[in-house]
Amino acid sequence: MSIRQGIPESSRDSSPRSAAARDDRAHVFHSWSAQATLEPVVVVGARGSRFWDENGKTWLDFSSQLVNVNVGHQHPKLIDAIKEQADKLCTVAPYHANEATSEAARLIAEVAPGDLNKVFFTNGGAEAIENAIRMARHHTGRHKVLAAYRSYHGATAGAIALTGDPRRWGSEPSMPGVVRFWGPYLYRSAFHATTLEEERDRALSHLAEVLTMEGPHNVAAIVLETVVGGSGILVPPDGYLQGVRELCDRHGIVMIADEVMTGFGRCGEWFAVNRWNVTPDLITFAKGVNCGYVPLGGVIISERIAESFAHRPYPGGLTYSGHPLACATAVACINLYKDERIIQHARHLGDEVLGPALEELKQRHPSVGEVRGLGVFWAIELVRHPGTREPLVPYNASGPANAPMAALAGACKERGLWPLIFSNRVHVVPPLTISDQDAREGLAIIDEALAVADRYVSSGGG
Amino acid sequence: MSIRQGIPESSRDSSPRSAAARDDRAHVFHSWSAQATLEPVVVVGARGSRFWDENGKTWLDFSSQLVNVNVGHQHPKLIDAIKEQADKLCTVAPYHANEATSEAARLIAEVAPGDLNKVFFTNGGAEAIENAIRMARHHTGRHKVLAAYRSYHGATAGAIALTGDPRRWGSEPSMPGVVRFWGPYLYRSAFHATTLEEERDRALSHLAEVLTMEGPHNVAAIVLETVVGGSGILVPPDGYLQGVRELCDRHGIVMIADEVMTGFGRCGEWFAVNRWNVTPDLITFAKGVNCGYVPLGGVIISERIAESFAHRPYPGGLTYSGHPLACATAVACINLYKDERIIQHARHLGDEVLGPALEELKQRHPSVGEVRGLGVFWAIELVRHPGTREPLVPYNASGPANAPMAALAGACKERGLWPLIFSNRVHVVPPLTISDQDAREGLAIIDEALAVADRYVSSGGG
Repeated sequence: MSIRQGIPESSRDSSPRSAAARDDRAHVFHSWSAQATLEPVVVVGARGSRFWDENGKTWLDFSSQLVNVNVGHQHPKLIDAIKEQADKLCTVAPYHANEATSEAARLIAEVAPGDLNKVFFTNGGAEAIENAIRMARHHTGRHKVLAAYRSYHGATAGAIALTGDPRRWGSEPSMPGVVRFWGPYLYRSAFHATTLEEERDRALSHLAEVLTMEGPHNVAAIVLETVVGGSGILVPPDGYLQGVRELCDRHGIVMIADEVMTGFGRCGEWFAVNRWNVTPDLITFAKGVNCGYVPLGGVIISERIAESFAHRPYPGGLTYSGHPLACATAVACINLYKDERIIQHARHLGDEVLGPALEELKQRHPSVGEVRGLGVFWAIELVRHPGTREPLVPYNASGPANAPMAALAGACKERGLWPLIFSNRVHVVPPLTISDQDAREGLAIIDEALAVADRYVSSGGG
Repeated sequence: MSIRQGIPESSRDSSPRSAAARDDRAHVFHSWSAQATLEPVVVVGARGSRFWDENGKTWLDFSSQLVNVNVGHQHPKLIDAIKEQADKLCTVAPYHANEATSEAARLIAEVAPGDLNKVFFTNGGAEAIENAIRMARHHTGRHKVLAAYRSYHGATAGAIALTGDPRRWGSEPSMPGVVRFWGPYLYRSAFHATTLEEERDRALSHLAEVLTMEGPHNVAAIVLETVVGGSGILVPPDGYLQGVRELCDRHGIVMIADEVMTGFGRCGEWFAVNRWNVTPDLITFAKGVNCGYVPLGGVIISERIAESFAHRPYPGGLTYSGHPLACATAVACINLYKDERIIQHARHLGDEVLGPALEELKQRHPSVGEVRGLGVFWAIELVRHPGTREPLVPYNASGPANAPMAALAGACKERGLWPLIFSNRVHVVPPLTISDQDAREGLAIIDEALAVADRYVSSGGG
């Protein structure tokens, strides 16, 4: 997995602003941003674990963009698949069948756990969650849905209603019927637990108690990220997901595992649920299924739930469901995971490279409160003081309050590493195909940059 | 625009079921359908206004799939654009800039009316509407949204809440805050009007009255399809959209024109609003922007609304916003509309081919209650009796109640025409690039097929 070839030597453009930069500022409205303050990098090329801008500056991509380019940038086999399918058939209506969609569905069903054998395709993760909820409600004839604080499920009205992070605030009130619960997070336990077992047991009895208060017979679904992503890379304690599965079974509730970020190798498994041998009723996916080379997401559906819609129409859809170009890319990508043993490499990276190195960083940097993760899915959580665990920046900080994290991000970027930063955490999520050497190069940059965060650590407290 | 080349001679496969057909039935979960009853056509190729299945059967596409392949199937210039961009850069995170996204945004802003100069990209139409509503709510600080009966806006929780057709029923209750109004539809006037002027005036005074009862200062947006699509190709009377614009101006309400189906040439204009010289505050688009060769949609935003998010973050986004591969295809598609004068051709088809021919069909077939449309966007509305105007099948009919329309669809398909049928209507929506000759060939098939509908016309009544 050598990836340095094809990267241009520094060839700085002398012009102050390109047409792409000018048109961006004049005409592109960006996600989640105050538009006047943006000065986005103009990306002109990418390969493997690196991308570069119009001035020839190259970054090692420790973000995988938005945790989607699992096989790295511009993988030649995915590009070939796009070109080949483009010549064949770019798009058909979702009421037709076609080879690419059929094959993608079969391959996804083959790697999905248990009897999750049917696939409803969408354009991305938000629509996947929207449809999973709709399926659960019709399957059960119930309306309420339980979703966790510290979660992200997308930004359409249903998906954002389920979301437990501050991105939800700008869209409330949204879809009704959502009930919130707390998941396990030992470092900041909602249950005053001190061991993983205690955290697991208390989180499960909390969930059971919420169900009792809501009336379990009113609950259509419990939805959770198998490993919580954007809200902190929160790995559930062993036994937690089994406990959720049992609660769902006891009460006839649909268990929805949102694997938009965790699926397709990110956690060193095809799906993160595999690690705990848990089979949910519905799995939502996007990102890693084809690395976002063409927008694609979907829901993998158990036979029992699919059967609910054998003779009554499923009341949902979208123009590009089962899009041939997107699905052909998924076929190529799934074959790539297999042929190049990418998921095994992801597990190796987690167990032997990222995990040990991050643990070492924690020992050396007082600003590092906790490191946690698995596979190629890690977080470094930063604090003002390791004793008090006060976050380095407040929840949902922006502007001056966020200065420490902004400085840390700046220190990474200056040194040629593109980080993914959420709140008081650096998420370490490079492509799964990154070489051990490049991973270590990135970690060395983070090590240097953490000196910036260390400066904000108070000497008092704890 | 010759399109017959490249279409295979009939070469019927002797095998009873291909792998694509088997895998489809085993693993693909289709939109809006009872899964057990499906036997989808396996599409293996397409060119221009035609597509064909694995048995070599070819159809003239009078559906444009789901009214999206405006430039026809597999246009070589769009395929080239996909391949070229695939080699360059398939995907980047939406917080970056890149050439394809910048150029697509500039080209869209150039053809959009008034000061609609900024583009927020999504994967499709539903997400476009979701974001338009979010923008309107934040811009005004108000919550309620007015939407029409007889409308379709997509199937995510916000978009489906705005939808006024039966597809909404399976998702209720959905996003709160939606207030319903009736739009103009003279053939089935909600206002007992008998002339277009009366229908227009009464529809506007109805809308004004709904605003009064809701408190106009509580209303964030009025959203409507410029020409209602899936609910009947309802062309607004001259002056109606101006009237809506004035109501919005009077009360500081955001006017959202949903042009997912009507935009990019379908109505013989870049946007259907152009026909009436009305500038909404937000336009939602998808489909025709790149004909769905790669999933893409978005919102075109007025300077005034964009300014609301200059210094406060816009609280919405998605992983594939501004997707380079999708945007590069939009650039090629917009250039194609210009270079091949496709929009002019669409207007010619409407004024000189489809319009006159459909009017003639109406004269000849007692089952045809009304024909209406513009550009390449027409409906044939079928009735039990032209006097009573009783629909040929009841609202939201299925199974035996829908037999007349199913028979009509079958008659078209047998004869090599793929129709788009909604409720008691045949929508005549081939690619904008269809030749006059192919359009006439399709109309001749519909003419024959209408004999089937005529059989259901009762001799009694009105």
